[in-house]
Amino acid sequence: MGMVGGGLGSFIGPVHRAAARLGNRIELVAGAFSATPQKARDAAAAMQIAPDRAYESYQQMFSAERGRADPIDFVTIVTPTALHFPIARMALESGLHVFSDKPATATLEEARALRRCVEKSNLHYRLSYTYTGYPMVRHARDLCRGGSLGAIRKIVVEYNSGWVDMAFKRLGLDVNPMNWRFDPSLAAMGGAFADIGVHAFNILEFVSGLRVQTVSAQLNGEKLGNSLFDDGNVLLKLSGDVPGVLMASGLATGNRNDLRLRVFAERAGLLWSHNRPDELTVGWRDGRTETLHAGTDYLSGTAVKSSRLPVGHPEGYLEAFANLYEEFADLIANATSAEHCLVPGIDEGARGMSFVAAAIASWRASSAWTTLVD
Amino acid sequence: MGMVGGGLGSFIGPVHRAAARLGNRIELVAGAFSATPQKARDAAAAMQIAPDRAYESYQQMFSAERGRADPIDFVTIVTPTALHFPIARMALESGLHVFSDKPATATLEEARALRRCVEKSNLHYRLSYTYTGYPMVRHARDLCRGGSLGAIRKIVVEYNSGWVDMAFKRLGLDVNPMNWRFDPSLAAMGGAFADIGVHAFNILEFVSGLRVQTVSAQLNGEKLGNSLFDDGNVLLKLSGDVPGVLMASGLATGNRNDLRLRVFAERAGLLWSHNRPDELTVGWRDGRTETLHAGTDYLSGTAVKSSRLPVGHPEGYLEAFANLYEEFADLIANATSAEHCLVPGIDEGARGMSFVAAAIASWRASSAWTTLVD
Amino acid sequence: MGMVGGGLGSFIGPVHRAAARLGNRIELVAGAFSATPQKARDAAAAMQIAPDRAYESYQQMFSAERGRADPIDFVTIVTPTALHFPIARMALESGLHVFSDKPATATLEEARALRRCVEKSNLHYRLSYTYTGYPMVRHARDLCRGGSLGAIRKIVVEYNSGWVDMAFKRLGLDVNPMNWRFDPSLAAMGGAFADIGVHAFNILEFVSGLRVQTVSAQLNGEKLGNSLFDDGNVLLKLSGDVPGVLMASGLATGNRNDLRLRVFAERAGLLWSHNRPDELTVGWRDGRTETLHAGTDYLSGTAVKSSRLPVGHPEGYLEAFANLYEEFADLIANATSAEHCLVPGIDEGARGMSFVAAAIASWRASSAWTTLVD
Amino acid sequence: MGMVGGGLGSFIGPVHRAAARLGNRIELVAGAFSATPQKARDAAAAMQIAPDRAYESYQQMFSAERGRADPIDFVTIVTPTALHFPIARMALESGLHVFSDKPATATLEEARALRRCVEKSNLHYRLSYTYTGYPMVRHARDLCRGGSLGAIRKIVVEYNSGWVDMAFKRLGLDVNPMNWRFDPSLAAMGGAFADIGVHAFNILEFVSGLRVQTVSAQLNGEKLGNSLFDDGNVLLKLSGDVPGVLMASGLATGNRNDLRLRVFAERAGLLWSHNRPDELTVGWRDGRTETLHAGTDYLSGTAVKSSRLPVGHPEGYLEAFANLYEEFADLIANATSAEHCLVPGIDEGARGMSFVAAAIASWRASSAWTTLVD
Repeated sequence: MGMVGGGLGSFIGPVHRAAARLGNRIELVAGAFSATPQKARDAAAAMQIAPDRAYESYQQMFSAERGRADPIDFVTIVTPTALHFPIARMALESGLHVFSDKPATATLEEARALRRCVEKSNLHYRLSYTYTGYPMVRHARDLCRGGSLGAIRKIVVEYNSGWVDMAFKRLGLDVNPMNWRFDPSLAAMGGAFADIGVHAFNILEFVSGLRVQTVSAQLNGEKLGNSLFDDGNVLLKLSGDVPGVLMASGLATGNRNDLRLRVFAERAGLLWSHNRPDELTVGWRDGRTETLHAGTDYLSGTAVKSSRLPVGHPEGYLEAFANLYEEFADLIANATSAEHCLVPGIDEGARGMSFVAAAIASWRASSAWTTLVD
Repeated sequence: MGMVGGGLGSFIGPVHRAAARLGNRIELVAGAFSATPQKARDAAAAMQIAPDRAYESYQQMFSAERGRADPIDFVTIVTPTALHFPIARMALESGLHVFSDKPATATLEEARALRRCVEKSNLHYRLSYTYTGYPMVRHARDLCRGGSLGAIRKIVVEYNSGWVDMAFKRLGLDVNPMNWRFDPSLAAMGGAFADIGVHAFNILEFVSGLRVQTVSAQLNGEKLGNSLFDDGNVLLKLSGDVPGVLMASGLATGNRNDLRLRVFAERAGLLWSHNRPDELTVGWRDGRTETLHAGTDYLSGTAVKSSRLPVGHPEGYLEAFANLYEEFADLIANATSAEHCLVPGIDEGARGMSFVAAAIASWRASSAWTTLVD
Repeated sequence: MGMVGGGLGSFIGPVHRAAARLGNRIELVAGAFSATPQKARDAAAAMQIAPDRAYESYQQMFSAERGRADPIDFVTIVTPTALHFPIARMALESGLHVFSDKPATATLEEARALRRCVEKSNLHYRLSYTYTGYPMVRHARDLCRGGSLGAIRKIVVEYNSGWVDMAFKRLGLDVNPMNWRFDPSLAAMGGAFADIGVHAFNILEFVSGLRVQTVSAQLNGEKLGNSLFDDGNVLLKLSGDVPGVLMASGLATGNRNDLRLRVFAERAGLLWSHNRPDELTVGWRDGRTETLHAGTDYLSGTAVKSSRLPVGHPEGYLEAFANLYEEFADLIANATSAEHCLVPGIDEGARGMSFVAAAIASWRASSAWTTLVD
Repeated sequence: MGMVGGGLGSFIGPVHRAAARLGNRIELVAGAFSATPQKARDAAAAMQIAPDRAYESYQQMFSAERGRADPIDFVTIVTPTALHFPIARMALESGLHVFSDKPATATLEEARALRRCVEKSNLHYRLSYTYTGYPMVRHARDLCRGGSLGAIRKIVVEYNSGWVDMAFKRLGLDVNPMNWRFDPSLAAMGGAFADIGVHAFNILEFVSGLRVQTVSAQLNGEKLGNSLFDDGNVLLKLSGDVPGVLMASGLATGNRNDLRLRVFAERAGLLWSHNRPDELTVGWRDGRTETLHAGTDYLSGTAVKSSRLPVGHPEGYLEAFANLYEEFADLIANATSAEHCLVPGIDEGARGMSFVAAAIASWRASSAWTTLVD
């Protein structure tokens, strides 16, 4: 694995590295960790990267690795969002599989262009919608698709966040590594709303199997007229005329990182919350509430395989993330097929950008119902 | 107290009677418990009402009580919604104070007409937005108004219900006493959405002190084209440009009666849920989560006075309801002033109908933003 | 109903009155509310007792009521514990049924003597082990006895309290009405340990159907060498060689009134906690956790009858207490038989005192295993 | 790192390996993974161990590694408990640091003998009381020692387990890898009670800073008269005359792995439960309940350093375990001193065995109070 971005002081870089390492199948051997050459070298040294694979730019890395007898199999992209597209495109053109941090790109147009690159490349491109890696999210998906819940009647998904301003002192970082997310030249369109909203959007479609068709959005906290929003509330019409609501907020003071999905079906309602990721609550129509736990035998096969530890031994964010890396490694090793791989790819990446674009368009048009385009 | 409606087999009638009784200040001495004379007499007998005060109609009761030396002080109305307006109007015209079940009336026009009746009557009219009686809802209100939370940035209020179909067998009733709520000639406009949505709307304004100004609504599950909806999701713009979301649903399988309010302010976020009515959760900006409990010393004076029992002795729905009855009794007895009385009145009743009307109008106009009229 | 004790400033007196009133079948018509005549009269006036039934002593009340055409049916005793025995004995001798606050008496000897009085009286004697009135406690009892859980393997019951010092300012009382509990001339033997420990002991036997046979106790926080303890931890051997643990503590800072029962059986474990009295958690052997809710159809018949409101409408301490009063009224009215009545009686009262006596004896003998005597 | 035991089919072996790997400082390069040579080789191959470091016995490994230019720094022992002592002793005699699974040894005598070996070795010996690695356990420790809680008045610690029979099918294992724990020739004295009870004992002393002095124990579910118990309930007297209770049970049906510690002090009570390992609940004397979260700024320095991720990103068992491995690596690298290292060592290991021995002796003597010997 080679890494672009994610140097010293990065928030998500170390998370990717620990997640990749946890499964014991992926080794970080090359990197272009910063756009500043000295910083890139310092980071590489701190990570025990061999000096000849400590690159000063991703262009240099892709070119040099191509010439090696033992090149990297894939590149992982953990830069600010605005750089995702050019790096992913060049990696694919250089014959490298790509594992990208989300969102896929900064704009819908880039996402479509990247989809074309992936389609003609014969390479694997996947991205880190991390929450899809949790066993209980996967069990929820299997329940929704297995028919035992009856038809879905309504979905509510929320991503409540109020933690940005409280979390970084403890990481010992001088500069808040989230800052670039508030810079229109580096962030994806949509700002914090998009940054967390695509997670909410993705988990909704991942679990339910329904597709969001049109949206009516209220977006709030715009900064400088640059389409960077702190908060968004979106009415949804899903396939099959199922109504839904999506809320994604950076204004949710007192919440940490509460991604929360509720699916209401004929026979039961499901609740999954990132506050208790190893639980799935099923509220049956007769009033019994059942709590299912990760690491137990009665879960679906996919959910069982997604746990490392037996019940009662909590697993968290790194373990969910590691599932994505391991399954991506399986894909590259042809140990699984692209169809069976649960790690989201460019289609899901483009869907996310399509959602953000439709939400912004709706808001600009007085919350008129706006159709997602693929 | 004289009661109209609420005979044998009623759901809310016995609740009103128990709530009125709990405070030991109100006695039920007269009633017109059913539109069917025999049923009215049977109910009165079962409730130990003196035969001469077991009336066959509310008209008869109002007229007869007027002629007594010991007339009732007030009438409580627990009929289907469509009858609230004519009964309340005639009661006021008969010189009786009125305590009405919610919603105030079946339509906005009736609510306005009733407001005029109340204004010219010099009598007290209040209604049972029960949730305003909980100590922790009142403490939330005092926190919002006291300034310690900083400015409000967003509000989300939900009323998630999936219980109607599971709850009535256990009451031993042959006929589901909720059935009239699905009959357009008896229910308020808006159906289940309005029936529970006005609670959500009221608690939002009661706690926050903000007012809903315009709405963009998605309403679902319409029955027979009669504006009776099972589910509604409404984007809100509140005074001071504060965004909000209101969801009220009878489709929320697996929920019981989960009215849930979240207020996100600069320094903290509040959560109150009817699942745990004796708790209020305050999430501070630095990440500490504080849970406050009913029956403790550190609550606001109003919240302290709203508990009957010391901390650790759970109180519930009847106790909250009883607070409204006791405070209404104080009002009649001039033990408190109309301004200081927390029990919602005709203004709050009309606000609720105005909200429902605006939501329906918005939905009919493709979710266009629609202003509430007073 | 006539009341002894429970005058102005009492903690438990108003609770008994509200609970008796809630069911709408019992009327408070006479009282000897204080040992101080003026206080007794003031209290009676405040409660709208007719002056000729506002007595200055219980002796006077029992004698005078006997001579009336419309005497009270029963007396409720809410005095300090040391007075329970003489009052209950005289009431029975006066031909009055007795509803007593717990514990039954101040000593085991008194409890045995009182049992003999009850047995020869042909009258009903019951006492307020309030927690047995909760629907979910009764459902737990029915589960334990119904066989679906398999054999019981272990029981843990706790009463964690740390609230005494925080709760009384809010009641607006000058003097802490709990103070007498710390006075050896007024309290039961055992002090706070006994005061709350008998609740824990009773609920264990009430729910499980097992009987505590021998105990090994550690008692702490003794005051003045008077066998008044703040805290007790007791190892139990139950019938059928089932092990158990009982903890009752006034030192449990941060707890409110957390009576908590866990029954571990072959196929499932049960948890009921007074923090969430309307829930019962059943943890099945395969790892599923099921939460059952009061007010639902699927509960046992007894549990269903013990709820006043449908699911989703919380009920609390007063409602549980009211169940005891209503069932006691049924007993007096011959609407139920003594065998079928769930309200604990003198046998349960004597069991509680036997437990306290055995625990103290064990502690005095270096925690030697000590057998309960009946 | 070299590993003894923990081959294919082991429960705890893969956990140690993942935990060691997570911190990115420790590499598994040698192993004697099974007492059966073929199994040892197969396991080594599966773990990509170089063939010349795939040993058939620990004796062979210690001897061969000593002769290498690049020997392992330390050995990690993950065999059945009965083998811990001989392996650890020989490792120390071979000049290797030791990281051992718990409990330290099978008997108290072995623990004392091992302590002498460690003392004369000048090498580091630490063991995996995993729960001490959780940030919130460490914050609880710092709160107890920092004085803000006031004097400790009581401690209750429990380890409730009912998961053994439900957890292993899902690991895809033919043979339950826990089986040896029920074999007296392989398990530590005390059986399941000791196996989990030493965790409970250790966390009590680790957090509170108090020491258990004497115990009165009830042990249950003895198998074959071999001092292997399924369940134990132990009354404790701690230093400073503080009372306590320890319960450790394999009979707690419906529980997963619920290690739960409550410390009641003058000004607040603490609750930590392994069900929610990233939370610590502080119940203040005035009735406020505060929940603290891992990954926040306001925790103690030690707790802050023990989190890898910012607040809202759950961490679990592997992350806590990895903290122990990282701190053990610091110790070997002289990056921290033995005094400041929080990873428990032979003293804590011997304390655990002393506790188990005292509990068994107490139970054999009718629960007589029995003093722990060092």
